[in-house]
Amino acid sequence: MTYCVGMRLDRGLVFMSDTRTNAGVDSIASFKKMHVWSEKGDRTIVLLAAGNLATTQSVISLLEERSKAPSERAPTIMQTPSMFQTARLVGNTVKEVIANTAPAGQNADAFGATFILGGQIKGTEPRLFLVYPEGNFVEATDDTPFFQIGETKYGKPILVRVYDREMSFAQAAKLLMVSFDSTLKSNLSVGLPLDMMFYQRDSLEVTMQKRVAFDDPYYRQISDGWSDALKSAFNSLPEYKE
Amino acid sequence: MTYCVGMRLDRGLVFMSDTRTNAGVDSIASFKKMHVWSEKGDRTIVLLAAGNLATTQSVISLLEERSKAPSERAPTIMQTPSMFQTARLVGNTVKEVIANTAPAGQNADAFGATFILGGQIKGTEPRLFLVYPEGNFVEATDDTPFFQIGETKYGKPILVRVYDREMSFAQAAKLLMVSFDSTLKSNLSVGLPLDMMFYQRDSLEVTMQKRVAFDDPYYRQISDGWSDALKSAFNSLPEYKE
Repeated sequence: MTYCVGMRLDRGLVFMSDTRTNAGVDSIASFKKMHVWSEKGDRTIVLLAAGNLATTQSVISLLEERSKAPSERAPTIMQTPSMFQTARLVGNTVKEVIANTAPAGQNADAFGATFILGGQIKGTEPRLFLVYPEGNFVEATDDTPFFQIGETKYGKPILVRVYDREMSFAQAAKLLMVSFDSTLKSNLSVGLPLDMMFYQRDSLEVTMQKRVAFDDPYYRQISDGWSDALKSAFNSLPEYKE
Repeated sequence: MTYCVGMRLDRGLVFMSDTRTNAGVDSIASFKKMHVWSEKGDRTIVLLAAGNLATTQSVISLLEERSKAPSERAPTIMQTPSMFQTARLVGNTVKEVIANTAPAGQNADAFGATFILGGQIKGTEPRLFLVYPEGNFVEATDDTPFFQIGETKYGKPILVRVYDREMSFAQAAKLLMVSFDSTLKSNLSVGLPLDMMFYQRDSLEVTMQKRVAFDDPYYRQISDGWSDALKSAFNSLPEYKE
């Protein structure tokens, strides 16, 4: 499995992804699921991937290769005029990869992959999309300001309750770490290290990108502290009286 | 969907279940998923059901009917000599119902149902089982002291962190209400009212059974209070520093 979150804040975009892929619990591996294309002053685009690893790698590789050989197909991910066009490009690439892989007329579900796409292109607003295996996509709005893909359930309750569009990058990092920690503790197929990225609105460059490893001191503080904080929260609620 | 929890404590057993069944979000109904057989001084047996409603109702009805006409098949659920034998009886009844329903040779997954079975029979210990659609079952142990069935993920993190085998019934009620509230807020197919039951070890009678409706004042306190308590817990964690 996988767990990735993309979040839209007033001050920009925040992304986090795990790195575990597995084919059964006895066959796990570590793969980066966060991919960044950035040209300072022009665009910063982030793509998080969940689903069939062969599909997601093909999609990334095609987007990557075509951006280096622009003659092959235009516009490439480094040339799209808007984030909407970028989402269409990603969607079409997913469809193309799945169509080429799945045997004709057969169920393509096993090859499915879902993506979170976010970023900003010069002269346009920062935008955040969820791209489906069918190649279509939806955009984050004020009502649905974040997207999760992969193992989404364990980490959702805290996101729903604490998310605030005005929060700082530091608060968003804390929130995502709690959400990921709950997921890591419940599902073996989501694993450390994590990739985290901040994108500051209108900066058109990567604001902060870092890998959070098992021994990351802040992550350890959150992981250890959350258990106690949750117990205190629980104890602070009124007692049940029969 | 459904959400049910059965929990083994030092002082006895605690059960909670929701009452929503649905066939699509536009076709919901309310059905009790908690069934109790009790004869004071002899046995108290509780069965929680999740899965295909036709299957779970058939299983309950067969168990019920046979306990009233003991000539049909012995031992019935009111006569089994141990909880282990009761689990076998429930398992065999599930297998029988699914075999009678599913077309020969076809996939029976759609008719599947899972059960939590707990209780105590005179002269034996209180025990808690999880019964699978295949009719086999596992028992709760000190390592896995509770079972969840149905929509289990949203409500699991709090159970894992707060459960303590020495907790009181009142604390267990609070814990289950928080776990159910997180699930209710995230999945429309789990719905109020809830059924709650305590079984005090060696009492061989129902200690407390009640229905928790939408306007239950304690449930409202927990539901409203948990959001704030969670936010305070979150704020109590150290801030992220870039």
